[in-house]
Amino acid sequence: MKQIYSNVAVWDAEAKTAKMCDVCVDGTKFAAVEPAGTLCGKCGAETKAYFDGHGRVALIPGFKNGHGHAAMTLLRGLGEDEPLMDWLQNKIWPIEAKMNGEMIYHGEMLAALEMAATGTTLYQDHYFYTEDILRAVTESGLKAGVCRCIFSTDKDCEKQIANDVRFAKEQSGEDKRFTVQLGPHAPYTVSFDLLKTIADTAKENDLAVQMHWLETKGERSMVDAWKNMTPEESLDRTGLIDVKHLLLAHCVWIEEKDFGFYARDNVTLAHNAKCNQKLCSGVAPIDAMSKAGICVAIGTDGAASNNRLDMWDEMRFAALAQKGATGDPTALPAETALKMATYNAAKALGFEHTGLIKKGYDADFILIDLDKPHYVGWDLQNLVGCLVYAGSSADIISTVVNGETLYNKGEFTKSDAEKIIANAKEIRKKLTA
Amino acid sequence: MKQIYSNVAVWDAEAKTAKMCDVCVDGTKFAAVEPAGTLCGKCGAETKAYFDGHGRVALIPGFKNGHGHAAMTLLRGLGEDEPLMDWLQNKIWPIEAKMNGEMIYHGEMLAALEMAATGTTLYQDHYFYTEDILRAVTESGLKAGVCRCIFSTDKDCEKQIANDVRFAKEQSGEDKRFTVQLGPHAPYTVSFDLLKTIADTAKENDLAVQMHWLETKGERSMVDAWKNMTPEESLDRTGLIDVKHLLLAHCVWIEEKDFGFYARDNVTLAHNAKCNQKLCSGVAPIDAMSKAGICVAIGTDGAASNNRLDMWDEMRFAALAQKGATGDPTALPAETALKMATYNAAKALGFEHTGLIKKGYDADFILIDLDKPHYVGWDLQNLVGCLVYAGSSADIISTVVNGETLYNKGEFTKSDAEKIIANAKEIRKKLTA
Repeated sequence: MKQIYSNVAVWDAEAKTAKMCDVCVDGTKFAAVEPAGTLCGKCGAETKAYFDGHGRVALIPGFKNGHGHAAMTLLRGLGEDEPLMDWLQNKIWPIEAKMNGEMIYHGEMLAALEMAATGTTLYQDHYFYTEDILRAVTESGLKAGVCRCIFSTDKDCEKQIANDVRFAKEQSGEDKRFTVQLGPHAPYTVSFDLLKTIADTAKENDLAVQMHWLETKGERSMVDAWKNMTPEESLDRTGLIDVKHLLLAHCVWIEEKDFGFYARDNVTLAHNAKCNQKLCSGVAPIDAMSKAGICVAIGTDGAASNNRLDMWDEMRFAALAQKGATGDPTALPAETALKMATYNAAKALGFEHTGLIKKGYDADFILIDLDKPHYVGWDLQNLVGCLVYAGSSADIISTVVNGETLYNKGEFTKSDAEKIIANAKEIRKKLTA
Repeated sequence: MKQIYSNVAVWDAEAKTAKMCDVCVDGTKFAAVEPAGTLCGKCGAETKAYFDGHGRVALIPGFKNGHGHAAMTLLRGLGEDEPLMDWLQNKIWPIEAKMNGEMIYHGEMLAALEMAATGTTLYQDHYFYTEDILRAVTESGLKAGVCRCIFSTDKDCEKQIANDVRFAKEQSGEDKRFTVQLGPHAPYTVSFDLLKTIADTAKENDLAVQMHWLETKGERSMVDAWKNMTPEESLDRTGLIDVKHLLLAHCVWIEEKDFGFYARDNVTLAHNAKCNQKLCSGVAPIDAMSKAGICVAIGTDGAASNNRLDMWDEMRFAALAQKGATGDPTALPAETALKMATYNAAKALGFEHTGLIKKGYDADFILIDLDKPHYVGWDLQNLVGCLVYAGSSADIISTVVNGETLYNKGEFTKSDAEKIIANAKEIRKKLTA
């Protein structure tokens, strides 16, 4: 089935500026992206859907959320404005301990609603009960890179990792909606030896790895103290730096002298601007990291510490906070921020053909209404700045994944939102009773 | 005409937690705020409109934008990510110089659309052509405290101030939609002697004063150098500190030892979190200021430097940035942020009866849809945290001023949005041609 989106302002991470285009989607892929006025009528009888943007709609790639814990939607708003350890020990951990796979499935479905409504088409998920998460990903229509959170204290730890590997292999396929990685929690919860085992296993089985990394100053000191190694030496000696792809989340406390170490094709850092400020972890120097050649993605973290899974909000916050933290108003310009938010996480999650508006790429995109009061003055040259600084996810008309519309004009067109919200409320009640 | 809003979760700056209430609006005022289930049916035949929140809608005061330049909507997105002086000298000032009263009227109307859609009911406006601004305020249905930007370099400077005074007196009245203040631009553009004249004039005529204050480090140094006075001594010796009400915007560089000086009933500071980071001015220590007893309001500044007039976005940014800047996750808790955003600017702008959901107060409020995915888990105790950290202006069902609905379910119910946007586009083209 072909769908035509005509007279839309198209931007993606490879564009110098936006262009007015006609876009043809054939099944799950972009079939053509041509100058506006050239595709209309050409697809004839085959065309099943036609959307005319009248030059007042933008079509850009959906957001790629580089780091999160989706089912923590069930824990949102517990213990606000509390010191970190009080919050974790008294509010989050005791309730998290009560969660089972079924609950996580429902929390994930809830998160998927919010992500679809705010324009995310692919997200990273680092949590528990991978099987239940994948069931939710498939039903929601979104895409995800998923890993189980590994701790040294896990019962039957190595057996569970073997299970992760088996699962990842079983689940891989051509038209995949998800990928599975190995997910050590963090250097302060996984021993050096176990990290080495994980790295070896990932290499043997061609799997990517995701991990929290140097989120807080305390964590940095702890990693520094490891057998007298720098954090970078530990990544090197465990072999993690050489896995297929290594996605490191937070990375607030990487030192400038070490940026070169992370500037590799197989490494991506995920920046979490809002939660890092909310939990007082610091501001990761992502403008400088990016300039040093590191691939930096943007992520929301879980809803317990953000508290929105809204990548647009996150991207703007990141851009403004970089300027604030560096004292340089040219830091993290809009184009870089939008690239980080719509493209940079895709490769780390194993999706090679999403993130661009380009023939042959997956039709994963959002439509944005530019006819709102705050867009007066937009043009093809300044569109990206208008989106990043003046727009918001409230401007999204549709969120489309693999050519399928998940969200349209305020309605969830694939999921039964009412039922999902009711289920989640029920579970939230049980968890907090 | 009576309107009943039943089964709504009500919060205002005087509430300890939200309460489930029925609210009766009679004409332009709140006539009753009673426990849910007690008002329904009681207003009988007189009731002309009835809204049932079914326990899933919040009713809170509309936002009060403490500092801005509304008509700068016409300059939005010009010269993003540029160094400050390049941006001002090459992009903003040359275009601003072309603006006339008619243009400012249209820019103001455009701003009013955005403000109504994002829940602002009262705003401060510091710009040019007061008469045209007041025309727009009246037509838009919003409320505003307005002042003309005074510079030492103004032609016929004292005559113009006399004109401001005459105008302020003519325009004052019982059921006012707006108030007029005196608005010296900043200490670096208005001489000490002129500030003294303005303070004297304000006192003689019982007018409030608004001014930019210590926004940048450079400005701080300049004010410090003034005749060997501290900034506080200059406010004291000019007499500005003793006017009816003094609203100071930005205030990034006030020193902690001087907080006590500003903790007075007739002084309000307006914090502009996003623009201060975007322009790298610094982070005003508003958590500490507030704890020292200073009345701190939140404002957006103009759309050229923010670039949203969205107080909800601004409030969240301010709360997260305070935690980040202080390293204290308990800094600027949600209740304080929401009070700053919905209440604290009202008195400074001369509106004594708006900002609370209370019998006799102006019916200026917003309705918020709590049935969205990101509110799962809200209750009366945690509502404020849910709103500040997880919500957004996209959740606003209606914005109501003096009992009149300006915005409802995505539609502008009072203004002709299409025409206003078309007019603004036309002017923007002229200005940037």
